Amino acid sequence: MSIDISPHGEYEGYTLTKIDSLVDSGMDGVLKDLQTLIRQPSVSARREGLLKCANLVLDIMQRAGIHTELLYLNCPKTNDGRSTSSFISPIVYGEVKSKSNPNGKTILFYNHYDVQPEDPVDLWDADPFSGKVEGNYIFGRGAADDKGELITRIKAVELYLKMFDDVPCNIKFIIEGEEEVGSPHLKEYLRLFSNKFRCHGIIWESGFVDTYGRPIISLGQKGILSVEISVKGPSRDAHSSLAVIIENPAWRLVKLLSTLRDATGTILINDWYKEVRDFTDEEISVITTETFDEDALKKEYHIEQFLNNVSGIEAKKAFVGASTCNISGLLSGYTGSGSKTVLPALATARLDFRLVPNMIPETQYRRLVEHFKERVSDNYSCKGNIVRDKDIEIRFLEGEPPSRTQVNQQFVDVVREAAIEIYGSAIVNVSSAGTGPMHFFDEILHAPSVCIGGTDLANRNHSPNEYIRIDQLNKTIKCIVSIMEKFANSNSKGHITKSV
Amino acid sequence: MSIDISPHGEYEGYTLTKIDSLVDSGMDGVLKDLQTLIRQPSVSARREGLLKCANLVLDIMQRAGIHTELLYLNCPKTNDGRSTSSFISPIVYGEVKSKSNPNGKTILFYNHYDVQPEDPVDLWDADPFSGKVEGNYIFGRGAADDKGELITRIKAVELYLKMFDDVPCNIKFIIEGEEEVGSPHLKEYLRLFSNKFRCHGIIWESGFVDTYGRPIISLGQKGILSVEISVKGPSRDAHSSLAVIIENPAWRLVKLLSTLRDATGTILINDWYKEVRDFTDEEISVITTETFDEDALKKEYHIEQFLNNVSGIEAKKAFVGASTCNISGLLSGYTGSGSKTVLPALATARLDFRLVPNMIPETQYRRLVEHFKERVSDNYSCKGNIVRDKDIEIRFLEGEPPSRTQVNQQFVDVVREAAIEIYGSAIVNVSSAGTGPMHFFDEILHAPSVCIGGTDLANRNHSPNEYIRIDQLNKTIKCIVSIMEKFANSNSKGHITKSV
Repeated sequence: MSIDISPHGEYEGYTLTKIDSLVDSGMDGVLKDLQTLIRQPSVSARREGLLKCANLVLDIMQRAGIHTELLYLNCPKTNDGRSTSSFISPIVYGEVKSKSNPNGKTILFYNHYDVQPEDPVDLWDADPFSGKVEGNYIFGRGAADDKGELITRIKAVELYLKMFDDVPCNIKFIIEGEEEVGSPHLKEYLRLFSNKFRCHGIIWESGFVDTYGRPIISLGQKGILSVEISVKGPSRDAHSSLAVIIENPAWRLVKLLSTLRDATGTILINDWYKEVRDFTDEEISVITTETFDEDALKKEYHIEQFLNNVSGIEAKKAFVGASTCNISGLLSGYTGSGSKTVLPALATARLDFRLVPNMIPETQYRRLVEHFKERVSDNYSCKGNIVRDKDIEIRFLEGEPPSRTQVNQQFVDVVREAAIEIYGSAIVNVSSAGTGPMHFFDEILHAPSVCIGGTDLANRNHSPNEYIRIDQLNKTIKCIVSIMEKFANSNSKGHITKSV
Repeated sequence: MSIDISPHGEYEGYTLTKIDSLVDSGMDGVLKDLQTLIRQPSVSARREGLLKCANLVLDIMQRAGIHTELLYLNCPKTNDGRSTSSFISPIVYGEVKSKSNPNGKTILFYNHYDVQPEDPVDLWDADPFSGKVEGNYIFGRGAADDKGELITRIKAVELYLKMFDDVPCNIKFIIEGEEEVGSPHLKEYLRLFSNKFRCHGIIWESGFVDTYGRPIISLGQKGILSVEISVKGPSRDAHSSLAVIIENPAWRLVKLLSTLRDATGTILINDWYKEVRDFTDEEISVITTETFDEDALKKEYHIEQFLNNVSGIEAKKAFVGASTCNISGLLSGYTGSGSKTVLPALATARLDFRLVPNMIPETQYRRLVEHFKERVSDNYSCKGNIVRDKDIEIRFLEGEPPSRTQVNQQFVDVVREAAIEIYGSAIVNVSSAGTGPMHFFDEILHAPSVCIGGTDLANRNHSPNEYIRIDQLNKTIKCIVSIMEKFANSNSKGHITKSV
C-alpha cells in the first residue's frame, strides 16, 4: 500500500509503507494475544471472568509499551464496611504520550473486554472459547465483538512504538468490562476521570466491513430501552387441568405483548414516536449514497423477505432511524424435552426497544408502563424502577439514549481518508442500527466518536460461531496506524466542537 | 370400622374389621416400599430410570405374593435387526386368582410407575426423589402420582393374602410406564393382551380426597390434544438491532397464539365445540350435588378470583365439562440471567387442549391447523403428524379422547359403598378435569373404570413438593380391601355393560 492512492497528501506517508510489513510479519503475535483473550470467558451478563480478563488485557498492553492501569470506581461502603467495588468491573486505562508531538492531538480508543453469553452452546461448531483458527478465520465468543477489534488498536500502537519508539499523536485507551450489559457504570467513570480521558477524537469499539470489503464509517448509535415483563399466575405451577378455572399467566403475557406492535413493526404505544426528529438534509444525502446489500443479508440469515417487505432507501432509513420493539426472550412453563401438562406459575418476556434521536429511555419507559396500566388493572404502584400491579411486574433493565456525530466533522474526514487509503474505498453511515454508550462520551468528553473496524457486516456477533477474518485484523491495524498519523497531521488544533 | 355403618349389608364385614389392625401395623412396610419407588426417578418425559423402576415394582409385588411379570410389546425390528422394543417401557402385569371364588368377579388395578419431570428443582424443599417423611406426609415426585396410589393397591392385596392366604375376587394389575407422556403404547398392550386383561371392573390409578376428607369417586376423564408450535426466524440468532428489517419469530408466535382464545377462556377456533354433547339430566343432577370448596382452591394457589370470575354450578360444570386451551411452555431467545440483545432464530410454544365428550383429538387438531393456515400463508404441506409452512411447524404431540363411565353402574355402587364405609361419606364426580387413557379400557376391555384414591384434592401432583398423606395411604388400603370384598359379593355376574 503506497501513499499515491490517498486522495489527500498532507501527511508523511512513508511511515505507513514501512509499518505495513511490520504488521504483516507481526500477525502471529496478533493471533496469539487475541486467542489469549478469547480463551478467558468474560461474560458480563453472568459476571464471569471479568477481572481475570481485565488483567490479561493489562498484561498485553504493558508488554506493548503502553502505560496501563486498572481504574476502579470509588464505591460507597456497605453498612458492614465491606466494599462493594468488587462488583463493578474495572476500566483498563492505557496512555502513550507522543514524544515528538506532546501538545498535539489526542486520540482515544474506546473498547470493551466483556462479551455476550455464549448460548446456545450446542449450535457452536467448537468450544465457544476455543479461539480456533481455520484458514482466514479465528472463532470464539468475542473474536470480533470486541476482543478482535481491541487487539487491532493495541497492536497498531505496539508496532508503531516498536518501529519509531514514539507515536504520532497522544494515545489513550478506555477498555471497559460492562458494555454488553449496557455500560451501567461508564458514565460515572467518565465523570470521575474526565480530565484523564480528555481527547480530541474517539475511535469506537466496533466497526464493520461490507460484503465488498468496504469499511463502514458509522457516526451514530441508536439508544435502547430494555425491560422485563413478568406475569404471575398461581403461587406454584399447577396441573393444566386447572386451566378451566385458573388464569394462565402465559396467556396474559401473550395478550399484553400482542398489543405492543403491529405486523409491520410499528409500535402501538401512545406517543411512542413523539420526539423522533426528522433526518437532516445532510443525513438524507449520506443515507441515499450508502450502499446496502439486501441479498447478502437475506442470504446470510436465510430469509426470503424483510419485515414489511421493505427495500431500498426505506430499508436504509430503517437501519439508521427506525425505533424497534424486539422480543429477546420468552419463558414460561416446561421447556424441556417431552411434554408436561402444567399451568405455569410465571411467564416472562424480555423486550428491547431501539431508540433514535431524540427519544429518552426514561420517557419511553413511562409510556410503556402507561400502556400496560391501561390494559391490566388500576392497582398499580411504582417502586424505584419496578412497576407492579398485583400480578404484573415491568422491570426497567437498561436505558441508553441515542447519539449521532455530525457528518461534517474534521475527525470524520481523517478516518474516511485513512480507510480509503487502506481499503480503496469507504462508506459513511449516519448511524449504526445498534446501541452503545456513545452519548456518554458526547455529553462528558465533548469529543466526536467514529466507528471503524474489521468485523464482517453479516457477522456472528452475539451468535454461535462468532468469528473475525484474519485479513481484516491486518487491514484494521494498518488503518488505525494511518488514522493516528493523519490525525496528528490534521490542521485543526485544540478541541473539536461538540457533536450532536 | 364395623359393618353397621354400611348402607348395604350383603357382604361379610368381619374381614375388614380384622384386616384393619393388620393395615395399621403394616404402615412401616408401606412407607418403606413407597420410599424405594420414589427414590428411583422414573421420568418418562426424559426416558429416565423406567426399566429400573419397573423391576422394583416387580420385586415388591412378587414379595407381596402376586404373580408378576414384565410384558413387552412385540415390536417390529429395525432394518439392521436391532430390536426397538427397548424404547417402549414394559407393563408390570400382576395376577392373583381367588382360590375360594375363581369363577367370580375380576377386579383390575390400573396404575403407572412413571412420573412427571421434577422441574423446577429449585422450588423443592428437599431432593425431589428423597421420599422424605415429615409427620403425616411423605414427599417426593410420584409420592401421590402414582407411586403412592400404586402402593395402596399392592398392600391391600399383600395384607389380604397374609391374613387369609386368599383374595375375595380375582385380582389383576396393569402398571404402565408411559402414563405421564400420554400412554402412547397402552392401546397396543391392551389389544395384544386383551384376553389376559379381561375383567369386570377397573380401579383407576388416581383418586382424590376433598378438604373435608371425603373421597371423590370420579367416573370420567377429559381427553387431551397436545401440540407444539414452532416459528422459525433467521437461520441463527441475530443481533436485535436487525429487528428493523428481520421479522422476529417470537412476535409471529405471540400474534398467532393471541388469536386462539379470548380472555374468558373461550377457544376461537372454528367449530371447536361442534361435537361437544350436552350433560345428561343424570349428570347435571350429580354435578349439582357435588361440593366444590372454591375458597380452599383459591387459598392453595394464592389467587383472588377464578378465570372469568366463575363460581358455583358454573365452576363445577367447567371442571367436569369445559374444553381448555392451555400454554404449558413458551421458549424463545435468551432466558438466562442478565440481558442479551438477540433476535431469536426460533420461538416455540407447547399447548394442551382438554377435550370433553364427544370431541376427537385428530378432528380438533385439524381444526387448529386450519386456524393457523388461514393466518399464516398458503404455502402449507402436511407430512405425517407435522404440518409445516416454510417457517411454522405445528406438531401433534399427543391425543387422547375423553371417556365417561355411566353413573348408574353397579361397580360404581360398590366403590361408593366401600368409600362410605371407610371415610364416612363419599362424593361422586361425573368426570375429572384431568386426562388419562380410560377410553382405551372402555373400548378394548369393555369394563367400567372408577377413580378412587388417597391424594389431597389441592395436592401438588406435577408440582414441587409433591406429597401424599400417610393417614390417606392407610385409609385407601382399607378402602381397596373393602372394594375387593364388596365386588366379590355383589350380585351381578359376568360382563358388565359397556360404559359410554
